[in-house]
Amino acid sequence: MIKGAVAVNKPTTPAQSHPGPMRRSDLPAHLWSRTVTFRHGQCDPAGIVYTPEFFNVFNQTIEAWFCECLGISYYDILGNRRTGLGYVSAGATFFAPCSMGEELDVFVAVTKVGGKSYGLTLHGMKSGREALRGAFTTVTTSLDTHQSIAIPQDIREALLKYADTGM
Amino acid sequence: MIKGAVAVNKPTTPAQSHPGPMRRSDLPAHLWSRTVTFRHGQCDPAGIVYTPEFFNVFNQTIEAWFCECLGISYYDILGNRRTGLGYVSAGATFFAPCSMGEELDVFVAVTKVGGKSYGLTLHGMKSGREALRGAFTTVTTSLDTHQSIAIPQDIREALLKYADTGM
Amino acid sequence: MIKGAVAVNKPTTPAQSHPGPMRRSDLPAHLWSRTVTFRHGQCDPAGIVYTPEFFNVFNQTIEAWFCECLGISYYDILGNRRTGLGYVSAGATFFAPCSMGEELDVFVAVTKVGGKSYGLTLHGMKSGREALRGAFTTVTTSLDTHQSIAIPQDIREALLKYADTGM
Amino acid sequence: MIKGAVAVNKPTTPAQSHPGPMRRSDLPAHLWSRTVTFRHGQCDPAGIVYTPEFFNVFNQTIEAWFCECLGISYYDILGNRRTGLGYVSAGATFFAPCSMGEELDVFVAVTKVGGKSYGLTLHGMKSGREALRGAFTTVTTSLDTHQSIAIPQDIREALLKYADTGM
Repeated sequence: MIKGAVAVNKPTTPAQSHPGPMRRSDLPAHLWSRTVTFRHGQCDPAGIVYTPEFFNVFNQTIEAWFCECLGISYYDILGNRRTGLGYVSAGATFFAPCSMGEELDVFVAVTKVGGKSYGLTLHGMKSGREALRGAFTTVTTSLDTHQSIAIPQDIREALLKYADTGM
Repeated sequence: MIKGAVAVNKPTTPAQSHPGPMRRSDLPAHLWSRTVTFRHGQCDPAGIVYTPEFFNVFNQTIEAWFCECLGISYYDILGNRRTGLGYVSAGATFFAPCSMGEELDVFVAVTKVGGKSYGLTLHGMKSGREALRGAFTTVTTSLDTHQSIAIPQDIREALLKYADTGM
Repeated sequence: MIKGAVAVNKPTTPAQSHPGPMRRSDLPAHLWSRTVTFRHGQCDPAGIVYTPEFFNVFNQTIEAWFCECLGISYYDILGNRRTGLGYVSAGATFFAPCSMGEELDVFVAVTKVGGKSYGLTLHGMKSGREALRGAFTTVTTSLDTHQSIAIPQDIREALLKYADTGM
Repeated sequence: MIKGAVAVNKPTTPAQSHPGPMRRSDLPAHLWSRTVTFRHGQCDPAGIVYTPEFFNVFNQTIEAWFCECLGISYYDILGNRRTGLGYVSAGATFFAPCSMGEELDVFVAVTKVGGKSYGLTLHGMKSGREALRGAFTTVTTSLDTHQSIAIPQDIREALLKYADTGM
């Protein structure tokens, strides 16, 4: 194992063994979630959510999760601390369309904690059934040099603690 | 007065007599409000909210106000009822910039209820002081013909009731 | 007149004498314009452009106008030069809805050049007839102090020259 | 092979054999591309493009490619023809950040044409080197029933012709 890397070796990643939509009961009980209502401007002329808006919702959920669940201000990381949380990959699988006015509960799972990167899976549940699933790999960087850096210690600890108890 | 038009004749529109930023105590006590947190993606490279995003926040607030305060689904109006709530004018005055991670309490006031149109003023308060103010005039239309129509009765009644008690 | 302020005293502002939609021939001949196509994601479930997107289109047009017409990089102003071009007011009047796939020619007019602020009017023409009109007042600021500053000399000269010949 | 399915069996998918960033010369010569300039409002407080905006850029590129290259109006498909072009998966890999004011040439490649779905890869090239790559799988649906349907014949033919000559 790469020095400084700590793999999450808890049961983890139920996502990977479910190619199809999951139910709420398939997810670990302790995952943090946030409810979003899809607004008029997020929907397209077909009346359903415009795909890039889902990535916006995922990002906003990750921001809220840092602030409200991990107890670390996402805005302080990017602002005062000058640490980037950019993605090396971002993707989503869509199981069911979402319409204007509908609510989605978005659950956050930590799937990997490496030396300079971590992985998150987001499960978007509509009425208890997965409508879409996002997967993100983040590399921590210096916003001054744009080079990757080790995950800051407080963030690493929070991710590992959440992975242990929250997933 | 135009037949079918009902002007709001309550003291109303404190906005018009305050060209500068208002304090919470300047607003009528009963105005409904919604709190928003400005997210990473709503802010620009100067670290402050990108102007068009404020109009997005205003629109989302109006949607939530219909659903949660007036008790009429904004999405049902535009969807099943095929009634448009488009703007003939939309504008905002900015008193102070808003930054990533900051919270804004957005208050909704009804300033006019006419035969086929109504006016709303939105006060964006940051720590009790107005950071920006939006003003919108909506014309109700048929989404089939794109012609203006009389404000549907349930919406008119809800607007007048809110104007009476909520402002 | 305030020291340092230079009012644009050319015929100017045809906008103010036309409360209704203008035709291309009502606009000064030399105004710079940019053509935009309204994309799927800019439109709402009614099939028409979501209002905040018009402000996005207006802002992007102003950016392109600085870079391509005035010959001053908007991005360098906000980046290296640390000069803000924020709005103290932004507004629009809508004459006709715009639908998915339609094209709009957006014309830029300078309506005022003051000491620390300038005014722009944007005319959105669809098939030669004005579909919407935007009006923006910008204050130049230091992005370090967020205080207003005199319009930088090169920007002032470019605005005045454009106002003279371009409007 | 599934009846009705036609696999693209041309050399195809150089993307899959290049996990790292490609150069322009690695791409088939005939791929259609579109140049975009990253605007102020697409960038975040770190000065780089906000991830969901890349998906917006990809979608807008696909729309332009349909209209300008394939010769089939994307807006007519979704509008009059009531045919959905929604994604079952959407993803991107990021090789280098993009900043405010930078230009990106986005190239479109067809990677698969099945019975009811097709795959696209989008290569975002900055100064001739790949900054990001998107991959999308679209399923054609009826917008009335939201059920998948066979790819309409004109779209299938255009995709196959482009795959042959354009990739």
